Amino acid sequence: MKIIAVDAMGGDNAPKAIVEGVNKAIESFSDIQIQLYGDQEKIKTYLTPSDRVTIVHTDEKINSDDEPAKAIRRKKNASMVLAAKAVKEGQAQAVLSAGNTGALLAAGLFVVGRIKGVDRPGLLSTLPTNNQQGFDMLDLGANAENTASHLHQYAILGSFYAKNLRGIAQPRVGLLNNGTEETKGDPLRKETYDLLVADPSLNFIGNIEARDLMGGVADVVVADGFTGNAVLKSIEGTALSIMKQLKTSIKGGGIKAKLGALLLKDSLMDMKNSLDYSGAGGAVLFGLKAPVVKSHGSSDAKSIFYTIKQISSMLETDVVGQLVEEFSKETSSND
Amino acid sequence: MKIIAVDAMGGDNAPKAIVEGVNKAIESFSDIQIQLYGDQEKIKTYLTPSDRVTIVHTDEKINSDDEPAKAIRRKKNASMVLAAKAVKEGQAQAVLSAGNTGALLAAGLFVVGRIKGVDRPGLLSTLPTNNQQGFDMLDLGANAENTASHLHQYAILGSFYAKNLRGIAQPRVGLLNNGTEETKGDPLRKETYDLLVADPSLNFIGNIEARDLMGGVADVVVADGFTGNAVLKSIEGTALSIMKQLKTSIKGGGIKAKLGALLLKDSLMDMKNSLDYSGAGGAVLFGLKAPVVKSHGSSDAKSIFYTIKQISSMLETDVVGQLVEEFSKETSSND
Repeated sequence: MKIIAVDAMGGDNAPKAIVEGVNKAIESFSDIQIQLYGDQEKIKTYLTPSDRVTIVHTDEKINSDDEPAKAIRRKKNASMVLAAKAVKEGQAQAVLSAGNTGALLAAGLFVVGRIKGVDRPGLLSTLPTNNQQGFDMLDLGANAENTASHLHQYAILGSFYAKNLRGIAQPRVGLLNNGTEETKGDPLRKETYDLLVADPSLNFIGNIEARDLMGGVADVVVADGFTGNAVLKSIEGTALSIMKQLKTSIKGGGIKAKLGALLLKDSLMDMKNSLDYSGAGGAVLFGLKAPVVKSHGSSDAKSIFYTIKQISSMLETDVVGQLVEEFSKETSSND
Repeated sequence: MKIIAVDAMGGDNAPKAIVEGVNKAIESFSDIQIQLYGDQEKIKTYLTPSDRVTIVHTDEKINSDDEPAKAIRRKKNASMVLAAKAVKEGQAQAVLSAGNTGALLAAGLFVVGRIKGVDRPGLLSTLPTNNQQGFDMLDLGANAENTASHLHQYAILGSFYAKNLRGIAQPRVGLLNNGTEETKGDPLRKETYDLLVADPSLNFIGNIEARDLMGGVADVVVADGFTGNAVLKSIEGTALSIMKQLKTSIKGGGIKAKLGALLLKDSLMDMKNSLDYSGAGGAVLFGLKAPVVKSHGSSDAKSIFYTIKQISSMLETDVVGQLVEEFSKETSSND
C-alpha cells in the first residue's frame, strides 16, 4: 500500500479541489492510502468517506505570501509542515501540496531531506510538446544559482525521471544554451557540456535552444534554476497571452466570429489541451529522500488527481530508491 | 539627408526582399539615401532606379554558417563588412543587415565601434504585448555573460531607446528576475537591483517576471544576454508552436473546422498580427557609435522597409548622439 501525505489547505481552491481530487484518486487506485492534513470540519464537507483516507486535523496553515523559510520554522503545526514530517518519520511515503512553492521547497529540503550525494535538488516538470510526448525540464527555479556539477546531476535526475515515469529507455538529454554549437555559452554551460559528454550513462545530444523545446528536440532539458524559471514563465506567459488575445478578438468580432469560434470549438480545444500538461502531474522537487510534489496553485480536482497518479507511479517504480543507489555509487567512486 | 548602408546579400530572401524593401523605403521617405552593398547584377534585377540609391559592388559575402569573428577578419570585402566600413569612414550613418547575426555583432563591435563608456553593447528588440504597446528588451544575446554594471547600462540604453523611438516620456524599467520581491534573485540580480534603485535618472519599477512580459508590465526589460536570449527564444518558440498546433488541428478537423476558420479569419489574423512585431523594425546592437540593425534572417520586403523606417527614426532623433553625451557625463563623473 502506498501512503501519500496531502496538504489539504494549500492552493487557491483548497480544501475543495484537493479533497475532490483525493476522492477521485481513492476510487481509481486501490493501492493507495491518503493522509489529509488540515481543517477537519472543512475537509469533511467535501470528503467521500473511505477506510483508505485519514484526516490529521490542524488549525495552522502556510499562506501564499508567507516568507518560506520563516514559515516552515515558525508554523510547526501547519498542514504542509505536518505532511512533510509524516514522511520524515516514516508514516507516509510522499508529500503533495498546492500551496506556497517556496515553503514546500524549504519543507522538502529541511524536513524530508536530500538524497546523500545530491547537492541541490531541482524542480522538475513535464512540459508540453507538439507531438504530445512532452519533455522533462529542471531546474525550474528551486535554486537561483547552480554550478556545472549541479547541472550534471540534473541530467542524471531528469534521465531517471523520464525512464521511470514516461517509460523512455534512453532519454535524450539536451543542455539549454544560447546556440546549438558545442562551443556556445558562458563558462557554466561550457563546463557542463564537458561533464555531460564525458558521462557514458547519459544519452547526451548536445546543446539545444529554447525555441525548439516545444518541437520535442529533447526528452530531458537541463538548465540552471534562474534560466529554467525564466523559460518556464515565458512559455506560460506567451501561451496565456495568445489565448487571451484570441478570446478578445473573437468577442470583438461580432456574430460571424462567434459562429466561427463555435464551428472551430474542437480545434480550439485541441490547441488548448495541447498546452495543458496537468495530466503529467505537478512539479517534483527531485533529489529528495521521498517524492515531494507541488501541484499548481490554481489546481482543480483533476490536476490533484493527476498529481496523485504521478506520485503513485513514482512510488510504484521506486525512482527515488534508484536515485539513492545511483548517487551512493557516485559518492563512493568519488572517494 | 540620412545615409544608410544596407547589406543586400544577407538573409534567406536576399537580395530580392532586401532590394524590394529599399525600393519601398525610398518611395516613402524623401530624406534618406541608401547604399546597397552586394552583387550589382543581382541587385539591379530588383532595384527601382533612383538617384538616392547607389550600388557598391562586391562578390564576397558572409554566409549564415560562417564563424563570425573569423568571417569579419578574413572576408574583408564581404557586403556586410563593407557596409560597416562605410559607417566607420563617415560615408554612411547606419548599417542594416539580415545576415549572420554573430558576424554583424562582430562587425558592429570591431568596425563601427563602441560608444566611449558603454562596456558591452546589448542587442535590443521591441517585442509584442497584448495592448499593442510593446516593450524593449536587452540584452537578447550579444553577450553570454554580463555584470551588474552592464545591466545598469542596459537600463539607461533601453530608456533612451523607448523615449526616442516610442515616445514614452518616462519608460518604466523592469529587471527580469525569478520573482517580484526586491530580495529575489542571484547575486547578479541583487547587485543590479541596488544600482537601478540608486539611479534617479531611471523610472525603475522593480523586479518583473517573464510570465508578465506580454501583459505589458514594463516598457524596458533588463536582462543578461544569456537569460534574455533564452526568454526571446521561448516566446518565439511557444508562439510558433501554438500557431502550428492550431493549423494542424484545423486541417484535421474536416469541413466544419475549415468553415469555422474561414469565419474566424479576421480574429485569427488579429492574433497573428499581435505576435508580429516586424513593424517595430529589427534588433539593434545598441551602444555603438552608429545604429547597427539586424533584420530577421527570414525578413521579407515589408520587414526591411520597417527596419529602414526604424533606422531613419534613430537618425532623426539622434538617439546615438544623446547616448554619447550621456555616457561621456557618466565617464567623467566616474573619474
